[in-house]
Amino acid sequence: MTNLAQIVNVDLGDRSYPIVIGSGLLSKVGEQIKDVLGTGLRVLIVTDSNVEPLYLNQLQDSLGKAGYNVASQPVPAGEASKSIEQIASIWSAAVDARLDRKSVIVALGGGVVGDLAGFAAASYLRGVKFVQVPTSLLAMVDSSVGGKTGINLPQGKNLVGAFHQPSMVIADLNLLSTLSEREFSSGMAEVIKYGVIHDADLFAKLEQNVSELRQLDPESLAFVVKRSCEIKADVVRQDEREGGVRAWLNFGHTLGHAIENTCGYGVHLHGEAIAAGMVYAARLSEVQKGFPPDQTQRLIDLFTAFDLPTTFTDGKWSELLEVMTADKKAENAVPRFVLADRIGKALLPEEVPEEILAATFRSWIESGS
Amino acid sequence: MTNLAQIVNVDLGDRSYPIVIGSGLLSKVGEQIKDVLGTGLRVLIVTDSNVEPLYLNQLQDSLGKAGYNVASQPVPAGEASKSIEQIASIWSAAVDARLDRKSVIVALGGGVVGDLAGFAAASYLRGVKFVQVPTSLLAMVDSSVGGKTGINLPQGKNLVGAFHQPSMVIADLNLLSTLSEREFSSGMAEVIKYGVIHDADLFAKLEQNVSELRQLDPESLAFVVKRSCEIKADVVRQDEREGGVRAWLNFGHTLGHAIENTCGYGVHLHGEAIAAGMVYAARLSEVQKGFPPDQTQRLIDLFTAFDLPTTFTDGKWSELLEVMTADKKAENAVPRFVLADRIGKALLPEEVPEEILAATFRSWIESGS
Repeated sequence: MTNLAQIVNVDLGDRSYPIVIGSGLLSKVGEQIKDVLGTGLRVLIVTDSNVEPLYLNQLQDSLGKAGYNVASQPVPAGEASKSIEQIASIWSAAVDARLDRKSVIVALGGGVVGDLAGFAAASYLRGVKFVQVPTSLLAMVDSSVGGKTGINLPQGKNLVGAFHQPSMVIADLNLLSTLSEREFSSGMAEVIKYGVIHDADLFAKLEQNVSELRQLDPESLAFVVKRSCEIKADVVRQDEREGGVRAWLNFGHTLGHAIENTCGYGVHLHGEAIAAGMVYAARLSEVQKGFPPDQTQRLIDLFTAFDLPTTFTDGKWSELLEVMTADKKAENAVPRFVLADRIGKALLPEEVPEEILAATFRSWIESGS
Repeated sequence: MTNLAQIVNVDLGDRSYPIVIGSGLLSKVGEQIKDVLGTGLRVLIVTDSNVEPLYLNQLQDSLGKAGYNVASQPVPAGEASKSIEQIASIWSAAVDARLDRKSVIVALGGGVVGDLAGFAAASYLRGVKFVQVPTSLLAMVDSSVGGKTGINLPQGKNLVGAFHQPSMVIADLNLLSTLSEREFSSGMAEVIKYGVIHDADLFAKLEQNVSELRQLDPESLAFVVKRSCEIKADVVRQDEREGGVRAWLNFGHTLGHAIENTCGYGVHLHGEAIAAGMVYAARLSEVQKGFPPDQTQRLIDLFTAFDLPTTFTDGKWSELLEVMTADKKAENAVPRFVLADRIGKALLPEEVPEEILAATFRSWIESGS
């Protein structure tokens, strides 16, 4: 089915790269890389303990058939692997695999593997090539576009890393069949976000195709992944280093990150935390920007259709505020929020008076969504 | 004496930066940074256990007077600090100092501190600003220009890192007074290299000013540091990512690195190892390129005048060759050498037949220089 593959070009000058989207691409990764990077290279695959038994052999075979010298380094599945210990294990594996400056690190996995492998590629020999083969919807629509890589420190998430664009991203939609429904929905939260910040038509299409998407209908999935990548690519192209519109991508993330942080990572999936965060951001936008309340309701209904949360009752406001204030995107210790005029039109981040933040949080929680 | 400060501009488009060279600049670092980066920033100084008691207080005072919020993180002196453990300690100190995206990491020290602090600046929050205050001649003329940062792995030197240009470099020549003669001469080896690869006039001037330089005459030092920075800046400007002429800078380094590696780091200082490596490269250039033997003699005489070695009798050729073959600059496991036509004119790196490498090594060692 590779004849149905579609390509999104991420246009970043001499760092431009293609995202190839289609069904059944995993067995063609070797050929695809050969077309872009040439033959005879050494390749190190970074994957995790969940993905390894499902897909590693097939990827190794494909790369081997294309004439590459292939090694692999699996890390334990989960956010805890975005650590100094695991990045050190990948650097060491890169030495053992005798990677040189022309070699390639391939990430086979979700966002954690992509961030970790990407930072290894950014830093090993001061930068080697990087290819992403995302296995989760979240990684396909979000973390595989934009070049952010990194690891966590004990003190916080993503505190260390680099901007390092991949040479290509190969998104095989078939791999989504092994994803849990909860993980799939978590990815959908980011897709819904793209609709809210930049594309009212996409948002409407999602509303109309809930059951097709939940059944992993290939055509609906291909459309959604492609459109999401296009929107993120467009935003990143305009603002690679995050001085301006790239901040739109943080819609729902100010509170979302605080939810993940205060509850402990892994309690709520990223998409679940930002779904709640987006409803809160919509409520703030109602107060500050006249965002239409019926559009907030559409947002709530769409999250509900994907079993995503629309409220958050596990935490205290004071704790959430403290975390938002300490966030690395805060300036002068004041949290900043991306608000929206309406579905399809996000605004640059701004400060919101603390009493409005608190009052809106209270009324949101009391109303139940 | 800051009125005598001279500036070399490293022209790298939007990554351009000034190198300020003069006597008595340490107490003006705060003002200098303020002129370029503005006020009110958080600053983390990275230094080492040798430099800390000599210069840290003065630097902290200067930064404090300029209104900066200053923290410091000293690491043990020596190459062993270019480690995963020490980079982790700096990342952690950056969190404790609450550095944000506008903050600055300042390297106060020699090449080790510069490489380590530079990689911390490249990677913390995916990149914060970086200022170098080099305290060794080697760091002033070599490692503070060019943007290479990094750490070692147990398997080899500089295997992990990033290209990250500083916002400015402030070279206070007075700091050289606390350098040992041996460290000073090690730095001179790189200065002599600039003469060989690109500037016959500089080479002649060095020959004429040995005693002034060894006595740290400010005017001679200023000239030498400035001209060295200009040459390196010019080479780096032409070739920031090392695809072409930047390789000139590796003259003498193919064997030099192998000497450092086989003897264990620290046995020979970097400049000592590359001095021997440069004499070998000149001998190879005689054979392959008709480099004039009397110019090799001038090179030997100049090294000798600075008490630098001109031969190497501590290692076996087979071991050296093995290390050169495994070097990250080798392609397809064949070592490459930068040769020269004459003093002032280096060539792009090339393969030299192994029998010529071995025979030239033998005759060089037998002749005693």
